[in-house]
Amino acid sequence: MALTFYDYTPAPSPRRARIFMAEKGVTAETIQIDMAKAEQLTDEFKAINPACTIPVLKLEDGTVLTENDGIAAYLEAAYPEPPLLGVTPEEKGLVANWQSRMLMEGLSAVAETLRNSSPGMKDRATTGPVNYAQIPELAERGRARLTVFMDTLNSRLKDREFVAIDTYSYADITAQVVVDFAKWVKVTPTDAHTDLARWHAAVSARPSASA
Amino acid sequence: MALTFYDYTPAPSPRRARIFMAEKGVTAETIQIDMAKAEQLTDEFKAINPACTIPVLKLEDGTVLTENDGIAAYLEAAYPEPPLLGVTPEEKGLVANWQSRMLMEGLSAVAETLRNSSPGMKDRATTGPVNYAQIPELAERGRARLTVFMDTLNSRLKDREFVAIDTYSYADITAQVVVDFAKWVKVTPTDAHTDLARWHAAVSARPSASA
Repeated sequence: MALTFYDYTPAPSPRRARIFMAEKGVTAETIQIDMAKAEQLTDEFKAINPACTIPVLKLEDGTVLTENDGIAAYLEAAYPEPPLLGVTPEEKGLVANWQSRMLMEGLSAVAETLRNSSPGMKDRATTGPVNYAQIPELAERGRARLTVFMDTLNSRLKDREFVAIDTYSYADITAQVVVDFAKWVKVTPTDAHTDLARWHAAVSARPSASA
Repeated sequence: MALTFYDYTPAPSPRRARIFMAEKGVTAETIQIDMAKAEQLTDEFKAINPACTIPVLKLEDGTVLTENDGIAAYLEAAYPEPPLLGVTPEEKGLVANWQSRMLMEGLSAVAETLRNSSPGMKDRATTGPVNYAQIPELAERGRARLTVFMDTLNSRLKDREFVAIDTYSYADITAQVVVDFAKWVKVTPTDAHTDLARWHAAVSARPSASA
């Protein structure tokens, strides 16, 4: 099955999809869209994804998936092994649940901090074709939320190997990307976050971490 | 299977879960948590959900799901008919994809507008146990994003009966809740949004709409 993956290696969002594909052993023809040159805002890329976001996974039948959740749901169904979204109903519920929390409390906090403070992202405070001015208070709030997130993640990992269930899942992938990219806005786990540190060392040692 | 559902009828987020359950024909013992009285912030409710958010679905085995995505994934696996997350891999990808867009471009814009402008939500600019001050510029940006969202949704519905795939899905549920609650922040579809209006009339006529 021929898949085309639109990527920008340095960014957090496409990394989630790359790790997911690496864990599944799925390969795709990869095309880099250089966000540093605003290539995601060109008419050429808008013809592929009018929402101007990366990653994009284009399937052989032409279906275009522009969201990590969509890419993950497709890949899990098309390539069931190893399961990354849980197996039993309870597991599926827990993976989606914790993935959502990692996204809303973690990755969105990284994004709002970075996009509302980085000089290189002036007027690019959200993704998409419309420009919005940066809101400095939102960057501050994002950094505060991210600090709370590190506590939440550390607490969740007490006596647990992985974030959502007994096996590595999509929730770990999102959490891993949050922790790695939080450094960009100078938020790091503290020495007290020992459970987070143990988990982070384990997920960073997986071959997919370099995807 | 005995399910317990923690609800607050007037709020948008628990309505997504109620519609999902109604479409599945699933019933649960329901407990109202009065957010107008800040009951979600009591120690009693924190013992159930430390993140202080509603909805919560508690399963018979004690598993607690606190996110709509988790509740949806569990219910789809435990009660497969009728499918609301797609059947084929492509459909599953498209439903998750468009649900994510409806959430991030629609529901999050409603929430950030309301929470950052409503006098009753002073210092409650985000969900959760930590108070954050309102950011008036974020309310303005949310309202602007919501206006763009109405265009996006209308465009997507051109020549389509439903948002994601040929059948009603979780993406329609989230979109339906966005459109219904956008009125709270005085954003409504325009007369030009004829495809959105046709779709909205159809989803509003489903028995689940009153859930």
